[in-house]
Amino acid sequence: MKKHNYSAGPCILPQEVFEQAAASVLNFNNLNLSILEVSHRSKDIVAVMEEAQALVLELLNLENKGYEVLFLQGGASLQFLMAPYNLLKSKAAYLDTGTWSSNAIKEAKYIGNVEVVASSKENGYRHIPKGFNIPSDADYFHCTSNNTIYGTQIKSFQNSPVPVVCDMSSDIFSRVLDFSKFDLIYAGAQKNMGPAGTTLVVVKKDLLGKTGRAIPAILDYETHIAKESMFNTPAVFAVYVSMLTLRWLKNLGGISAIEKINNAKAELLYAEIDRNPLFKGYASPDDRSNMNVTFNLADGVSGEVFDGLWKAAGINGLNGHRSVGGYRASMYNALPLESVQVLVEAMQTFEKKA
Amino acid sequence: MKKHNYSAGPCILPQEVFEQAAASVLNFNNLNLSILEVSHRSKDIVAVMEEAQALVLELLNLENKGYEVLFLQGGASLQFLMAPYNLLKSKAAYLDTGTWSSNAIKEAKYIGNVEVVASSKENGYRHIPKGFNIPSDADYFHCTSNNTIYGTQIKSFQNSPVPVVCDMSSDIFSRVLDFSKFDLIYAGAQKNMGPAGTTLVVVKKDLLGKTGRAIPAILDYETHIAKESMFNTPAVFAVYVSMLTLRWLKNLGGISAIEKINNAKAELLYAEIDRNPLFKGYASPDDRSNMNVTFNLADGVSGEVFDGLWKAAGINGLNGHRSVGGYRASMYNALPLESVQVLVEAMQTFEKKA
Repeated sequence: MKKHNYSAGPCILPQEVFEQAAASVLNFNNLNLSILEVSHRSKDIVAVMEEAQALVLELLNLENKGYEVLFLQGGASLQFLMAPYNLLKSKAAYLDTGTWSSNAIKEAKYIGNVEVVASSKENGYRHIPKGFNIPSDADYFHCTSNNTIYGTQIKSFQNSPVPVVCDMSSDIFSRVLDFSKFDLIYAGAQKNMGPAGTTLVVVKKDLLGKTGRAIPAILDYETHIAKESMFNTPAVFAVYVSMLTLRWLKNLGGISAIEKINNAKAELLYAEIDRNPLFKGYASPDDRSNMNVTFNLADGVSGEVFDGLWKAAGINGLNGHRSVGGYRASMYNALPLESVQVLVEAMQTFEKKA
Repeated sequence: MKKHNYSAGPCILPQEVFEQAAASVLNFNNLNLSILEVSHRSKDIVAVMEEAQALVLELLNLENKGYEVLFLQGGASLQFLMAPYNLLKSKAAYLDTGTWSSNAIKEAKYIGNVEVVASSKENGYRHIPKGFNIPSDADYFHCTSNNTIYGTQIKSFQNSPVPVVCDMSSDIFSRVLDFSKFDLIYAGAQKNMGPAGTTLVVVKKDLLGKTGRAIPAILDYETHIAKESMFNTPAVFAVYVSMLTLRWLKNLGGISAIEKINNAKAELLYAEIDRNPLFKGYASPDDRSNMNVTFNLADGVSGEVFDGLWKAAGINGLNGHRSVGGYRASMYNALPLESVQVLVEAMQTFEKKA
């Protein structure tokens, strides 16, 4: 039975990527070797790394603008530490929009002074704070573009008087932005880019080397830039599958093409949540994420019948994050519109049966 | 044509592991989902993590001895930093046996005082220093069990008055040791355990929490222990393939069974290096590694004909590390004895043609 995979990450990737990845585990580039057993310094793997880096710059429209692309390990959670280690000299400004922002703030505090410029914690992170002041004496401003757990997304980024660092783990490559407004972008691969195990870092090189801090080699962006992401053995397979996924996105027409599909999916599902009296959305309508749609049953409604319906329809991964409950439909790039239609049908069938 | 893969890492894994891994990229556990798109918190992936951890303790004979098993990211190179971050209070003792020891020493110096108890750098790291003094006021003693680049291996570990930390990246699971003599073992997966992208850490829990240092969450072993290696999204596929490889090793009869095969491979190749007048070994005979056999052409011998012979025989990855040159035959667990016979035949053919 075909599955409709709403998993919040690791998550659905294109079927053709799974097929190419599986074939390369058996025989990579007709070398009669598995991609898992080939040296990361072989010309075939160096070519994978270079293609992945080039695709990132091309898709983000950041070619020839002074950016370096790295594929590291450790997830966004290691970037929570590496970003301040490399950039925080006297003070950093952070926007708190959820669990991941909050974890980033905690790690930055090990390195230096952190000013939280605004937080939506008091209302359960249902909205994105706006109109806050970013201090001009901060070394950088840090924000999280999309909040997987609460289903909110920054729709419009405030102008910043200082360099902008953004955790785009859960919505990079999903919508058109002027990426040149960001000085450091990082993203765990396991949403729109690839499987778990590698982390994308896109950094403006002239931002680095200014703190005067001695940085351990493994945490120093300049080390990894100098060694072209091969200071130590990279997560070869995760980078390869990311490269395949980026190729797929390019062939589809790039970010502007996928954005149209993502908008259509989000409009369809939010319309049903707003129309169907048995459901209510969690996030403030203005700040609703197109990637992670969070919703609950209306007051007094029992979910048992609905849970049976979506499971019977082949839907996977619709439960909300364990910290907030309810439902969460994660609709990353590779989720087809058809899967959203199946979910909406289950919601409508539930309404008829109630 | 069948390949004989001598790659130094990432390296050969069992063929049955490649086949199972490729099948799971298409359909994991009959879920009709790829292993790359399943949540790391799903019961199927939690079961993979738990089985991998249990197999590590079973194979190392460390069950019920106070050890915790972690699958982290960042390679041994991140452990070069994490180990001192978690353990170094006043001073650490390090043995320098090559490039990786040397890198570990550099990272530890960012954290605190390091005393290098002995080094074989002066003779090109051809031997393992012995009979050195480990200061009893050190917080721990750090060593590298096997040196991939130079082809040396610690055959007998000195008794230590302080806890022992060992980087076993390139020979873990290859030979029988009393692993309970080590307090912290770490190893990048990409030799005897799995593909690149995950790092095994086996740590005695009572060693931790003693430095008084505030440790960022992502670098704190206690964080990862409390979250059972899921503080953040682990490298799911790399852990899965490691689990498959550990299962294969267990079914083969465990470490004592593979050790016999590894000894036979090493004896065969070293005997040929010593017998054949066209070659000479690099490492001191007493300290020769059973994993990485380093050798050179005898003085005045040209390698062109030999290079043609081994390449024509389907051998891959025999060139020495770019920092030392010559040849390096990496003979990890999954390399069959037959591949060593093919190499020895090429060496003998070369002798006849010379």
